Amino acid sequence: MALVKNGKLLFNERPQDYPIPGKTTVYDESETIDLDNVPLNGGYLLKVLCVSLDPYMRGRMKDSKSYVGGFEIGKPLSNFGVGVVLRTEFDNVKVGDHVYYMGMPFQKYVILPNLENARVIKNEENFPWTVYTGVLGMPGLTAYCAWKEYSRAKKGEVAFITTAGGPVGSFVVQLAKADGLKVIASAGSEEKVEFVKNLGADVVFNYKTTNTADVLEKEGPIDVYWDNVGGTTLDAALANAALHSRFIECGMISGYNVDAPPIRNLMNIVGRQITMTGFIIGFIAEKYLSDFYTEVPKLIKNGTIKYKEDVTNGLEYAGHVMEAVQRGTNKGKAVVVVADE
Amino acid sequence: MALVKNGKLLFNERPQDYPIPGKTTVYDESETIDLDNVPLNGGYLLKVLCVSLDPYMRGRMKDSKSYVGGFEIGKPLSNFGVGVVLRTEFDNVKVGDHVYYMGMPFQKYVILPNLENARVIKNEENFPWTVYTGVLGMPGLTAYCAWKEYSRAKKGEVAFITTAGGPVGSFVVQLAKADGLKVIASAGSEEKVEFVKNLGADVVFNYKTTNTADVLEKEGPIDVYWDNVGGTTLDAALANAALHSRFIECGMISGYNVDAPPIRNLMNIVGRQITMTGFIIGFIAEKYLSDFYTEVPKLIKNGTIKYKEDVTNGLEYAGHVMEAVQRGTNKGKAVVVVADE
Repeated sequence: MALVKNGKLLFNERPQDYPIPGKTTVYDESETIDLDNVPLNGGYLLKVLCVSLDPYMRGRMKDSKSYVGGFEIGKPLSNFGVGVVLRTEFDNVKVGDHVYYMGMPFQKYVILPNLENARVIKNEENFPWTVYTGVLGMPGLTAYCAWKEYSRAKKGEVAFITTAGGPVGSFVVQLAKADGLKVIASAGSEEKVEFVKNLGADVVFNYKTTNTADVLEKEGPIDVYWDNVGGTTLDAALANAALHSRFIECGMISGYNVDAPPIRNLMNIVGRQITMTGFIIGFIAEKYLSDFYTEVPKLIKNGTIKYKEDVTNGLEYAGHVMEAVQRGTNKGKAVVVVADE
Repeated sequence: MALVKNGKLLFNERPQDYPIPGKTTVYDESETIDLDNVPLNGGYLLKVLCVSLDPYMRGRMKDSKSYVGGFEIGKPLSNFGVGVVLRTEFDNVKVGDHVYYMGMPFQKYVILPNLENARVIKNEENFPWTVYTGVLGMPGLTAYCAWKEYSRAKKGEVAFITTAGGPVGSFVVQLAKADGLKVIASAGSEEKVEFVKNLGADVVFNYKTTNTADVLEKEGPIDVYWDNVGGTTLDAALANAALHSRFIECGMISGYNVDAPPIRNLMNIVGRQITMTGFIIGFIAEKYLSDFYTEVPKLIKNGTIKYKEDVTNGLEYAGHVMEAVQRGTNKGKAVVVVADE
């Protein structure tokens, strides 16, 4: 192989609202890499197989402190991804190992120095590698850990889960049903609504055609609210919160690309004695990691836990996928396959 | 004594914004009571000594579900208060006992059936009875229990405490200082600011003349936020919240009488991983009651815990005090002395 192009998706300029492929991000093939001879300096060379596109990445495009590092103009985007080891000078990985890395740059080949923020995946169940960016990656962990940590779910309670067609929401729906809750779920297309119904949710609606507050008034009050949305949806949840309800604040995508409507019903947090907890998965995952990796792969393998991916082939299209994720037009966990093995 | 007037402060009409004495409430002396012969039906006759006026009462004047019962038009207001037993047919109180009651009607004499929501006060320290509506009553319990339950305070952290000149805030300031925190405190007059400085708060400002967000930006970020205010103050706290900060949502008076400005910075709850907990003291007090009544009276007696009362004599002025509490023009814990012993 020797000298090959090392294609990259560069962060080109900050978006005004929604990211625009070719403007916010540009695909660049100007750099080459000598795969046989590039110096590893004690590290290892990965061929990137797939990278994840997630809503939270929009925050990293802002010119303000984000809770994770901001993207640098002129440098590749980065996010969770999986690669395979081509060469190594690092003792703890060997050629052919698959590595899951939190900061995978959006480029075809990368040299990593060690396993910090990375993990060798065994994949005994022989899943496609993309699964490790979704239900077995950050989104799956997000759903699993935060549900266990914050929901205090009791059988017979009512949960309202937003973005239920997405990788986090769809897993939460299944966790809530497994705990014996009545699940109200919202999604942004009829196709997603069908998928979520098949997961066992009790009440599923398309929030673009059905008023959220009306549904919650009829089907609530809600004991657990899984928020990926914020804005008017959060206000509707506050208006229909049960006494001592738990609001799990995972994200607020309604305010990522445009100004979110301000919140008007927060006063209910006092009267309804609501606990509202914001979290970032990296800070709470550790205590659940062992359970997660013992339990969840089996549940996926035997079909108990279902998931849906929206796979795009080609790193050059990652900017389009980024836009789709922000607009909610993706049809499942958005992942870009950069290369086959 | 025999036949005496049983003066009452009646809820007359719902206020549009701030309650207006003589309009929202009217004082009525049309009823008499025969203290010697009025039938007790197994209960006991109390002479009401003092009643508390608290911000939350505004919510009970609304034509919507409040978290405690709404006031009924034409009936007396009611709230925490202390009375002395004049006659009894109830075994668990005797004549001369002092009873603290959660639902004390704003009237001179009342017959209670039992000790439900009531408690005989021993008052071994010989405090004025008004103290049992303030630092040793609901506001004191509110401060003490919620600080212990929700603050997770660690020495060296920074707390921001609103309405620090009031009975809840001023107690919280002292609890936070006792726990070794740096305390930023806001109050609504220079006189209150002086009082709070004397409690040991590190940074005290008059929020009417100094911009809250500026102070927090300079003195924060804040690890614990005690919210009695909501609105723009809460937004300023959200903008200056430390990672993993705790927001104790005790009240939001900025929205009790007029529409509160909506909240714009709630997105920070995710990025900063904030836990926000609303509570009502009646639901969390029980586990702390024994500690509270063992510990706090001594600390007050020996001067470790300081408090400030704003005492008004005469039930006929309770409507004026209600207005003052909503406008924040009271100078300490607002209490109305209905009668001397």
